[in-house]
Amino acid sequence: MMTPALPKGTRDFLPEELARRKFIFRTIESVFERFAYQAIETPAMESLDSLLGKYGDDGDKLLFKVLNNGDFLAKADQEALAAKDADRLAPSISKRGLRYDLTVPFARFAVMHQHEIQLPFKRYQIQPVWRADRPQKGRYQEFYQCDADVLGSESLSYEAELVQIYDRVFAELQLPVTIRINNRKILSGIAEVLGCEKLFTQMTVAIDKLDKIGWEGVSAELMHAGFSEDQSARLRNLLEMRHPEELAEALAQSQTGSLGLRELARVKNYLETYEFANEFEFDLTLARGLSYYTGCIFEVVAREMAYGSIGGGGRYDDLTGIFGMPGNSGVGISFGADRIYDVMLALDRFPQSLGSELHLLFIALDEESHSYAFRHMSQIRLAGYRCDLYPEPAKMKKQMKYANARQVPFVAIAGESERNAGIFSVKNMASGEQNNMDVKALIDLLKNLS
Amino acid sequence: MMTPALPKGTRDFLPEELARRKFIFRTIESVFERFAYQAIETPAMESLDSLLGKYGDDGDKLLFKVLNNGDFLAKADQEALAAKDADRLAPSISKRGLRYDLTVPFARFAVMHQHEIQLPFKRYQIQPVWRADRPQKGRYQEFYQCDADVLGSESLSYEAELVQIYDRVFAELQLPVTIRINNRKILSGIAEVLGCEKLFTQMTVAIDKLDKIGWEGVSAELMHAGFSEDQSARLRNLLEMRHPEELAEALAQSQTGSLGLRELARVKNYLETYEFANEFEFDLTLARGLSYYTGCIFEVVAREMAYGSIGGGGRYDDLTGIFGMPGNSGVGISFGADRIYDVMLALDRFPQSLGSELHLLFIALDEESHSYAFRHMSQIRLAGYRCDLYPEPAKMKKQMKYANARQVPFVAIAGESERNAGIFSVKNMASGEQNNMDVKALIDLLKNLS
Repeated sequence: MMTPALPKGTRDFLPEELARRKFIFRTIESVFERFAYQAIETPAMESLDSLLGKYGDDGDKLLFKVLNNGDFLAKADQEALAAKDADRLAPSISKRGLRYDLTVPFARFAVMHQHEIQLPFKRYQIQPVWRADRPQKGRYQEFYQCDADVLGSESLSYEAELVQIYDRVFAELQLPVTIRINNRKILSGIAEVLGCEKLFTQMTVAIDKLDKIGWEGVSAELMHAGFSEDQSARLRNLLEMRHPEELAEALAQSQTGSLGLRELARVKNYLETYEFANEFEFDLTLARGLSYYTGCIFEVVAREMAYGSIGGGGRYDDLTGIFGMPGNSGVGISFGADRIYDVMLALDRFPQSLGSELHLLFIALDEESHSYAFRHMSQIRLAGYRCDLYPEPAKMKKQMKYANARQVPFVAIAGESERNAGIFSVKNMASGEQNNMDVKALIDLLKNLS
Repeated sequence: MMTPALPKGTRDFLPEELARRKFIFRTIESVFERFAYQAIETPAMESLDSLLGKYGDDGDKLLFKVLNNGDFLAKADQEALAAKDADRLAPSISKRGLRYDLTVPFARFAVMHQHEIQLPFKRYQIQPVWRADRPQKGRYQEFYQCDADVLGSESLSYEAELVQIYDRVFAELQLPVTIRINNRKILSGIAEVLGCEKLFTQMTVAIDKLDKIGWEGVSAELMHAGFSEDQSARLRNLLEMRHPEELAEALAQSQTGSLGLRELARVKNYLETYEFANEFEFDLTLARGLSYYTGCIFEVVAREMAYGSIGGGGRYDDLTGIFGMPGNSGVGISFGADRIYDVMLALDRFPQSLGSELHLLFIALDEESHSYAFRHMSQIRLAGYRCDLYPEPAKMKKQMKYANARQVPFVAIAGESERNAGIFSVKNMASGEQNNMDVKALIDLLKNLS
C-alpha cells in the first residue's frame, strides 16, 4: 500500500482539461493540414548521440537520460566509476535520451528518410518533449510542442504562409494576437554598420529584453558587452526607425542588411491582399535571443493579456547539416500550447461545447427496465449520439443527482409503465419539462439539439 | 557529422503511415466517446515506486528507468556501487520510469484524483507505452495502447457495452472480427470441481495455448504441472461442452462457477436484441493466461487473417487497491493498434482517402504569377480545402512531376495570360481535361469533389 505521487514537473490531464487541450491541438492541426503540412511522429527516445551537443551545454544538462537495460554496470566507464564522476559515467550507462524538442528529431528524420520524402517537405508534429528544467508555474518537465516546418526550399512564400497559419489558428481559437516579424539579416546588417559584428549574439540577446528592462537596461547590458556609448545610441536610433525606406538607406552599405530588407518586402508582397484577422507588424526589436535563426523570425503575443510569447519561429540556413545532409534551408513555427491554454482559460475563450459532453443519460427504475434502457441506448449510440446509462436501477434521487453532476441536457427515464408502453419519460433538464417518447422521437430530439 | 540512427525497437512514422494510424485511433476514439468514455492523459514518466512490482519480476526488468539529473552518483548506494551490483544500484540513481501500460497509471490517477472524478468513472486513454522487450517483427519498445475502462461499478451492463464497443469499432474499420467472451469464475469453478484449485494459474496458462499446441500439448503441460490423467481428461470434457445448461449442471457444486455462468447470462441478456456486425461467441477455452482478471474476459481476433489477438480485456476485482483505495471493481478493454494496422494493411482495408490528401496544387510560371497564385490560394484554404503552391516558378515539367508525385486531383496553372485575365488554367489530373476558371469556380469544383 502506498500513497501515489507524480514525478515533479509532470501532470495528469483530467477529462475537462484534456477536452480543452484537444480543442487547441485539433484547431492547429486542421489549419496545418489545410496549408498542406503532413503529420509525422518520431519516438520519445532518441539516441543520445542524436541529442547531445544540439542544445548547448545547458541543454545537454537538461536532457533526460534513460538507463541502459540489464547489467548496465558491465560496460560502465571504470575510471569514471572509481572517480565517482557522474558526467563522465553517464554516456557509458545510458545510450538513449528523451526528445528535448521536435526540431532535432525532424532533422534526424529527414536525413534518415531522405529517399522516402519529397523536397520541399512540409511536416507538422504535435508531440510531448521533456526537459529537466526546474519546475515552476507554467513550466513543466513534460509539455507538448506543435511545430510546422518546411525543409528544402528558400522560397519566401513559406514565410508568408506560416504567418497566415498563425493568423488562421488564432482566428479560429478566437484569441486576438499580434504576429510580429523581423529578419535576422537586418539585425546582422545593423551590427555591421555599427561595426560590432563580433558582438552580434550579445546584441540580439540584449534587444530581446527591451520589453522587460527598457532602453536603459539594454544600453547598460550592451556597454557591459563592449558597445561604446555612441554605438549604443546609434543602435537605439536605428531600432526606432519605423519606415523601411529610412532603414534601407541606413543599411545601404550592408549587403546582408539590404538582403534582409528585400526578403521582408517579398514576404509582405505575398501577403498584400491577405485579410488578417489579427494584427501583423514588422518589429525591428524582435530578435529571438540565442536562437540559430538566420532569416525571417516570428513571434506571437496575445493582445488582451501580457503573458510573453505564445508562438515563435523562423528560418535557419542549414537544418540537416548536423546529421550529414548539408545545404537544406528550413523555416518553421511553433505553438506554445500550454501558454495558449492558460491565456484562453484566463480570458474564458473556450467554446461552451467541446464535442465530448453527454447528450443524454438513461435512468432505469428496476432491473428489467435497466436491460430495456440498455438495449434502446444502443440504437441512440448507433445514430451517433453520446449517451450513457446509470449502472444500476438505484433510487431516482441518486440517479438524478448523477445526471446533474454530469450536466446532461436530457434524461430518459424507464420504469415498468414506460417499458410496457415501449417509451421513455424524457426530462429536459434545463426547463424541467417532461414528455413521453419512443426511441425514434428521442433521436429526432437529439438531432435538433446539434 | 554523424550518421543518424534510431534506438532499437523504436520507429518513425511517415505521413502516409501516420495518416492510417490516425484513422484507426480516431475511429476508436469516436466510438469511445459515443459510449460516454472520457479521455484522460497521464505523463510518460511515473515514479518508479508506482511502477515496480506491478508487472511481476519480468515486468520490472522491462521497465525503462530514467537516470536522475545532476550528480546522480552523490546519493548512489555506495555498497551496490562497490559490488558493481546494477540491480541494487538502480533505485539509488533512478527515481522515474517510463509508463509500461495504461492500467497502472489509470489506477494511480483515479486514487490521486478521487475527489475530482465521479464514480463510476469511464475513461479512455490513447498514449504510447515503453517496454525493454527484445524487438522483433511486430513487437516494439515503444507502442500505443488504446484502453477504455470503467472504475467503481460491478454492473454487468459495462461488460455488455464493452462488447458493443468492439463490435462498433471493427464495423467502422470494416475489419470483420470474432469477439470472444468467457468468465474466469467459470474457469475457477472448473478447477474447483476437478479438485485442482491450486493449479488454477497453470491451468489457465495451458488452456491459453490450446490454439497453438492442441489438446495433446495442453494435456502434457497440465500433467507436467501436476494434473492427473483423469483430471486432464475431465477438463477436456468440460471445456468441450457447448451448452451453458450442460455446464451449469456440471458446475452446480461450485458457487464460483455458477456465479460466473449467471454473470455471463446477464451480459447476454443485455445484448439480446443487439444486432452484431461481427461474430460474438462464448469461448470456454478463452483464459487470458497470467492476467489478473477475476470476472468476464474478452478477446478479439480478425476473421480473415490469423494474426493472434487484436484486442482483449476483462474485469478485475480490485483495481485501485495497490494505491490504497480498495474495493473498486474495474472492467476494461484494450485495442492492439499496431496489430490492427498490420492486419488492415495486409487485407487492404484502409479507405482511399484518409482526409489529409491535397485537393489542389498551384503552379506558377513566373515570379509575379507566383504571388498571384499565392494570394488566391489563401482564399481556397480559407474555404477549407487543402492546397499548396509549388515553391518557385520552376519549369512546367518539373512542377507537373511534383504534382504527380503528390497525387493531386487538380492543378491550377498561372502564367502571364491567366494572371491578366484573373483566372487559372485548371487541369484535371485523372482525365487530362483543362479549363479556365476563376477562384470562385475553383471553389465550386472542389466543393463537388468532397
